[in-house]
Amino acid sequence: MTVAPRIRTQVQVMFFDTDCGGVVSNIAYLRFIEIARTLLAEELGLALTEMAENQRYPVVVRTEIDYRRAAKLGDQLVIEGRLERVERVRFWCAFQITRLKDNTLIAQCRQMLALIEMPEGKLLRLPEHWEKYRGDDSAELQRESQAPTSDKKYTQ
Amino acid sequence: MTVAPRIRTQVQVMFFDTDCGGVVSNIAYLRFIEIARTLLAEELGLALTEMAENQRYPVVVRTEIDYRRAAKLGDQLVIEGRLERVERVRFWCAFQITRLKDNTLIAQCRQMLALIEMPEGKLLRLPEHWEKYRGDDSAELQRESQAPTSDKKYTQ
Amino acid sequence: MTVAPRIRTQVQVMFFDTDCGGVVSNIAYLRFIEIARTLLAEELGLALTEMAENQRYPVVVRTEIDYRRAAKLGDQLVIEGRLERVERVRFWCAFQITRLKDNTLIAQCRQMLALIEMPEGKLLRLPEHWEKYRGDDSAELQRESQAPTSDKKYTQ
Amino acid sequence: MTVAPRIRTQVQVMFFDTDCGGVVSNIAYLRFIEIARTLLAEELGLALTEMAENQRYPVVVRTEIDYRRAAKLGDQLVIEGRLERVERVRFWCAFQITRLKDNTLIAQCRQMLALIEMPEGKLLRLPEHWEKYRGDDSAELQRESQAPTSDKKYTQ
Repeated sequence: MTVAPRIRTQVQVMFFDTDCGGVVSNIAYLRFIEIARTLLAEELGLALTEMAENQRYPVVVRTEIDYRRAAKLGDQLVIEGRLERVERVRFWCAFQITRLKDNTLIAQCRQMLALIEMPEGKLLRLPEHWEKYRGDDSAELQRESQAPTSDKKYTQ
Repeated sequence: MTVAPRIRTQVQVMFFDTDCGGVVSNIAYLRFIEIARTLLAEELGLALTEMAENQRYPVVVRTEIDYRRAAKLGDQLVIEGRLERVERVRFWCAFQITRLKDNTLIAQCRQMLALIEMPEGKLLRLPEHWEKYRGDDSAELQRESQAPTSDKKYTQ
Repeated sequence: MTVAPRIRTQVQVMFFDTDCGGVVSNIAYLRFIEIARTLLAEELGLALTEMAENQRYPVVVRTEIDYRRAAKLGDQLVIEGRLERVERVRFWCAFQITRLKDNTLIAQCRQMLALIEMPEGKLLRLPEHWEKYRGDDSAELQRESQAPTSDKKYTQ
Repeated sequence: MTVAPRIRTQVQVMFFDTDCGGVVSNIAYLRFIEIARTLLAEELGLALTEMAENQRYPVVVRTEIDYRRAAKLGDQLVIEGRLERVERVRFWCAFQITRLKDNTLIAQCRQMLALIEMPEGKLLRLPEHWEKYRGDDSAELQRESQAPTSDKKYTQ
């Protein structure tokens, strides 16, 4: 199994990312994660400009995000993303947001995605060259047994 | 145990809710849910205008959302929200988004929240009058055993 | 000349509309205005659901917005919109945002729009039945002479 | 008169910046401009992190934006910003958005801002060291006479 792609990017918290609680809005973090996911998709051979042309897009099927600490206006945030798991028509990405200056963990997120052809909304098989990122069976079985019940319900 | 508050509201999908995939952006649904959550908070005695004054806000600690079907520009969406579970300093809300015209399930979401006093970020005990929404022990135990592993990891 | 359509709608300020300055973000008001513009377009015979099907959309060509007072979390805002002026391939809409409880003027906005057929981006003639909203020559001339220089620059 | 600060930054168009028309949403451009404005403010000695601490923020009083061409998913956009004019309690910034690959002009924008101390909303005098960016009287008069009528109405 080849080591799965990882990316790392950085954003600075802008006014439009915050709300009147004085900290970053829970919704804004999902934009940060989408930036990281896009870079990760490019690593995997899915460039944005091509998606726009051939109308094949990765779509988010499930998001799980945990907010650990609050980030503030002006904070430099590091977003790290990696391909966590590849199935036949679905894949999981994992993301972590930390504050640059003190390495504080801000948020952790997992997203399950699928490839869809629009406008029909047709579900596509994942690219063959992603096979190399699939774990072997034993790893998969092991993970399966640790998998949260809620995931099972949603992904099968 | 008193029946926990439920609310129901409606939004129409606007241009700014969609993306170039031709359907509603995964991030936009979280705005719809925030509208429902706000109405639910009012039912629970937490009015927005008071929050702004006394700087006590409910903050989202975890979000789980499953995207079932894609909504489109102009769709009328119904968002239903309910208080699902009350703990000592945390509570869970559950949301469901359906399309009005054909009752299609669009998305399901659960959020764990806490009450925080800003700007200190101090965690507050939940209001005493919410006690009546806490399940009895047997119900709680039962639910505990069904709870997804991932929740346990994050909430304990 | 037929009286041009006017609409009036209401929104409540949500957390995601505010920023850490404690008031509504300058960008959020443009979402409120888009809601009003959509309702106005429906009055004019351009329903959102049809736009999505036939890929003919009104696009904003210019926005002018003046922020008068700051709105806050929980405020009920009234957005009023009207068709201000119809030309051959462009039209102007005017919007006003006031706070419901004290009728305070929050923001004023004008937008110039055109009808475009996507994905070619082809500029369309405005619908014939909009002719009735065109002012007569004298009114137009009168307005022309009051028009801000900046408008002239951009629209001619 | 010292040459006024200018900045230049770059963004890539993400899914959340587009709408179902297939191009960048008119509202998204104002986020791009806010990123540039923030960098420009830092050049002028107003760092984001300090704003959050001392609660003194630049607020947008008026925005004028012209949409020239449509940008698409994946486009690399260059945003240039400069301080255009300094008055006693107000200043104007000018922005230009171009597409990197073909230098196409996408949008032009001017914003009038003021410095405000929150939560009182008190209008502050502009920093003394900005004096050096004020034009001399003749330049100011000259500009005044060219100024669009609409500006006069709003700024006096």
